[in-house]
Order: sequence, then structure tokens, then C-alpha cells
Amino acid sequence: MLDEIREQPAALARTLEAERRPIQQLRELLERNRPRLIMLAARGTSDNAAQFGRYLLEITTGIPVTLAAPSIFTLYNARLNFDGVLVIAISQSGESTDTNLVLEMAREKGARTIGITNEASSALARISEHTFLVHAGREQSVAATKTYTGQLLMLYLIAYALGADISLDKLARLPEWAELALGLEPEIRHRAERYRFMDHAVVIGRGLNYANAFEFALKLMETCYVIAERFSSADLMHGPIAMVEASFPAFLFTPSGVTWPGLREIVEKLIQLKAETLLITDASNRAVLELSGQAVTVPAPLEELFTPIPYIIPAQIFSACLAVEKGLNPDQPRTLTKVTRTY
Amino acid sequence: MLDEIREQPAALARTLEAERRPIQQLRELLERNRPRLIMLAARGTSDNAAQFGRYLLEITTGIPVTLAAPSIFTLYNARLNFDGVLVIAISQSGESTDTNLVLEMAREKGARTIGITNEASSALARISEHTFLVHAGREQSVAATKTYTGQLLMLYLIAYALGADISLDKLARLPEWAELALGLEPEIRHRAERYRFMDHAVVIGRGLNYANAFEFALKLMETCYVIAERFSSADLMHGPIAMVEASFPAFLFTPSGVTWPGLREIVEKLIQLKAETLLITDASNRAVLELSGQAVTVPAPLEELFTPIPYIIPAQIFSACLAVEKGLNPDQPRTLTKVTRTY
Repeated sequence: MLDEIREQPAALARTLEAERRPIQQLRELLERNRPRLIMLAARGTSDNAAQFGRYLLEITTGIPVTLAAPSIFTLYNARLNFDGVLVIAISQSGESTDTNLVLEMAREKGARTIGITNEASSALARISEHTFLVHAGREQSVAATKTYTGQLLMLYLIAYALGADISLDKLARLPEWAELALGLEPEIRHRAERYRFMDHAVVIGRGLNYANAFEFALKLMETCYVIAERFSSADLMHGPIAMVEASFPAFLFTPSGVTWPGLREIVEKLIQLKAETLLITDASNRAVLELSGQAVTVPAPLEELFTPIPYIIPAQIFSACLAVEKGLNPDQPRTLTKVTRTY
Repeated sequence: MLDEIREQPAALARTLEAERRPIQQLRELLERNRPRLIMLAARGTSDNAAQFGRYLLEITTGIPVTLAAPSIFTLYNARLNFDGVLVIAISQSGESTDTNLVLEMAREKGARTIGITNEASSALARISEHTFLVHAGREQSVAATKTYTGQLLMLYLIAYALGADISLDKLARLPEWAELALGLEPEIRHRAERYRFMDHAVVIGRGLNYANAFEFALKLMETCYVIAERFSSADLMHGPIAMVEASFPAFLFTPSGVTWPGLREIVEKLIQLKAETLLITDASNRAVLELSGQAVTVPAPLEELFTPIPYIIPAQIFSACLAVEKGLNPDQPRTLTKVTRTY
């Protein structure tokens, strides 16, 4: 898992290089034929990437986005109106049965379809109208890492193709920012020891980093068997905050920008409740220094829009190191296999 | 909390009686002007009701549904295309700031708007084009119960207004089924003792009962300070199943019908992992008897479509009884207040 985490800068650079031209073509195509609704379909880690896409695409394109609930099609046989809908299915293996079923059904009913996968010869690549590849190289670890960040990158590129004002030059810096995040490994390895006996936690993110809260929590559940809740800062205040007591471990993604005032309030509340807080942030958020919580800081000043990839890397490293501290093998979690088929 | 749980049959009957005629009028209006997309906006327990609405409305009307991410409007100021969109905001108090902001912004941009609230004189009732009232009577307990089931009932009625093939005569039986569920109180009170020292759990539901998994978990977090994860049976298999070990408490909503084969597989897997399973089911699902897990059975044969209200009632009773077993006051969870304002 750590080896695959370390491959991310190179994988991101490969994806940027390979998919830049197909994305320009998609942009020209979509200019003439703008969808009125985007539906994202995925499971597991890919579903967390879809959650990121949901925020990114609505914020940057103004097109409403919905996350597909596969059972509505696979179990209830609902006949949805797919007129003007663009369906984007995301799957590392491209063999996720229910995700593929949603895409096929939507395509039959006239939806445009895009597949994002790491496997060029997968079923998803065959059945989607446009396929974009995450050039991460085969992922061996059951816990997905490099394919998650590759999927996020593809979603930035698809937002660009839908007319979003996202600078390709700035996207080209993501491999460099990922490299800087990787440099935090010794610090994180050291910090992980403190959490040797952690058996539960809460992970908090908001807006563009809400998906990262889901993804960090999933890594903690899969590789460390930690019961990890995940919330937006607003949802936490609507009930679950009641379970937070002294020493409750809380992890927060805290970029500077529009989400910071609300997140700051939560951090202050958690510190007041004597929770054990750890913030993942970057050099642009100096206000973090005024708070008494612990922080892991990516050593570059980042615009909030570009924080999700550099921010998940410290969380991936933390999960891998904590699994080792706990005497577990992060590559082979109990009960799991790499390709999961559900209906 | 228990008093308010017990008021539900009467509250549901009042809502049916009072809102039947306005719903007929809405049905006539929407026949001439069918939305192309429905957006549901809510927080906390009301957001769990919205999650139910998302499944119910897509399955029974075929109109795509999305759950609003309020921060996209309140923090990122996204300019969404609201052409042909019906926004339904749900709030017990009608004073949820971010939910109201989403509705106001959408209405300004041309969306049709519906508000569902328990408070006739609230801000939400004032600003929505059509308001439907949950006639639950003032809710005193911080943990919402009777307003949640009232919101579910209103969503059935709105699905009917959108042309869904839902029998009003069957909806009229919901108070009777709720009464039968209330009859389980002595059995549940007895069962709750076993869970005196439970500090974590997982709640599983699928399809129309997926929202109930969120709602039961929220009740356990709010009133019993139990760290309660919630998943669909499919999502559980994509990673989190790894954290389940012997004695891990798992609660499942298991109606007969289309979701049962997948749920049965999960129950069998959990029994094999020696998890502590408790199923909430009804008299129509005889297959439950073949499994070795424990079950709480609503003593009426129910169609899956009508299970969510009768099924959440045993879960509410369980949470209230467990809080008392743990020496806590379920009406006044620490850290929380009844009206939560977030942006």
C-alpha cells in the first residue's frame, strides 16, 4: 500500500499527459450538447471520488449533479427519465456489476455515458460511450490509493471539458504538490504511534474535501479496523456531536477559503470538548497555528480547489502506518477481495 | 422521547386527515407542470427523511432526484441551473438556516418550491410556494421521532401528487401499523438490557429502508452516545465489512421483497463472522425464521413499500430504552439544542 501511495506523483503525471487531448475533444463535443443533469455511479472508494465530483461539477459548471443509487435500477427496476442526462460511471477495476448495470441501462434509454477506470480492457471501458483511463498501473493493494487520486484528477478534467474555469496549468502542478505531501511520511509515521490503540474516530470535511472525509474513514475501517464515522462539519452539529467526549479522536481536512470559518468553529468546539484533534492542512492556512490542535501541513500554499489530492495523501500514509503499528497487513484486509460484485 | 414515540399513530392520522385535500390540489397542479428534476434539501433527521424521499420519488415517479449539498450554495455561491426543478425543503422547526437559504435561492432562480415542516408559523412555511404541515404537535425531545415519521408520510403524499401509483387507502393504514409496532415496547425494553455496555454498532438498510439505517444510527449516536455506522448492504461489502469481528453489534432492516436476497447474504455473512445481529422485520418475511439471528417482528404482513414507518418505531423505542439502561436522559443529549443553525 505504501509503495502504491508513493507512485502517485508519477501516476498523476501520466494521466495528465495521456488524457489531455481526449479531454479537449470531449470539451468540443459537450459545447454543442450540454447535459441538463449529471449522474455519477460508483461503489466503495470510487463512490468517494464520485462524491468529490458531485461538489466539483456543481460548483464549477452549474449543472445539477446526482449520485446514482444503484438499487433503484438493479432491484426496483425504476424507469427513470434519462433525457439530457450525462452518466459518469467510476470503477477502479471496471468490473463493478451494479455500476456497469446503471450505465448500460442509462445508455439504452438515451443518456450520454462516460466511464472512468484503471483497466483499459474492462467491461466498463467496453460499454461506455467515452472511456477515460486512470493511468495508475495495476493496483495490487485491496485498499485503493493511487486509483482514487487518479479518479479525482479525471473529474477535474471532465469539469474542464464541461466548460469549468479550471486552469490546466494549475492541474499540471498536482504531481508536484502530491510529491510535497509524500515528504510528510516520516512525520506521519512518528505520529501514528500515538494512535496504536485507537478503535474509533470521526473524520470531518466540508465542500470539496467532504469526499476525503469518507475516503480517510474508509481507509481507517478497511486497513486498521477502526470504526470511523465521517461527517460534514454541519451534519456533525445536527446530532452526532453528542457522542464526542474527552480524548475522542477527530481528524479534519482544513483548507483556507470558504469552508474555513465553519470548520474553525468545529475545531474550537472539539478542543473545548477535549477531543484529540488532528488537522490536515497546507501552508496557506496560517490561522491553524492559532489553535491548540495538532496539524499535518502540506508545505505549499494551496488554493482550496486544488487541496483534495494533496490532502488525502497524508491520510493514506497515516492509515498504512497505523495498520503496521497495529500489527496488521494493510494490503490484505480480512474479509475483503479486490473486486467486489454487488447488485 | 418515549411519550412522543407513542403519539405517532395519532399524529400520522392527523396529518393524513389534514393534508389529503391540499395534496389532491397539488396533484392537479403538477399534472400540468411535471418537474424534470427534484432536489431535496434538509439537515439532521430531516435529511434522513430526504434520503427516504430520494428512493421513494425516483422509484415511484421516474423523475431523477438529488439531495442538495447546502454548502454549494451557502459557501461556494454556485449558480445552478434551476430550470424545471422542484425543490422540497424539509425541516422540523422550519428554522434551519442553510435549508431555508437553498429554498430561497432556488425560488429566486425559478424553481418550484415545497416546504415540509411541523411549525406553521416558521420561516420555511413563509418562504415556500407550497407548505405541507406535519401535524405532530410540538416536539419537545431533542431527538426527533414523531416528526420523522410525519415527514416520511408527507413524502408518500407528495409522491402521490407527482402521479405515483400509491394507494391512499393503504397509506390510511399506516397509523394502525404504527400502533402494532408500538406494541413491541415490552419486548424491546427487555432486549435493550443486553446492550447496556455497547459502545459501537453498525446499522444496515437497503433501498426504501436505507434512510432508516441513517436514522436509527443517528438516534443511537444522539441519545446513547454509541458510535453507530450506517451502510447499505452493498456499501458494507465494499470495505467496511473488514472491521466486523466476533460480537460486533449489527442491526438490519429486513423486509421481504426485492432487497431481501442481498440482505440475506449479508445476514449470513455476519452470522458467519459471529457478529451480534438483530433484525427488524415483519410477519411477511418468514425466511428470517430460518436464520439464527435475533429478530423483532412487527406483527402484520407488510408490503416493502410501507415498511419504513412501522420499522423505525422499534428502533426509536430501542434507542430510548437503551439510553435509560445507560443512565442517560434521551430528551436532553449533551452538547445539543433543538434548533441547530449551520451555514
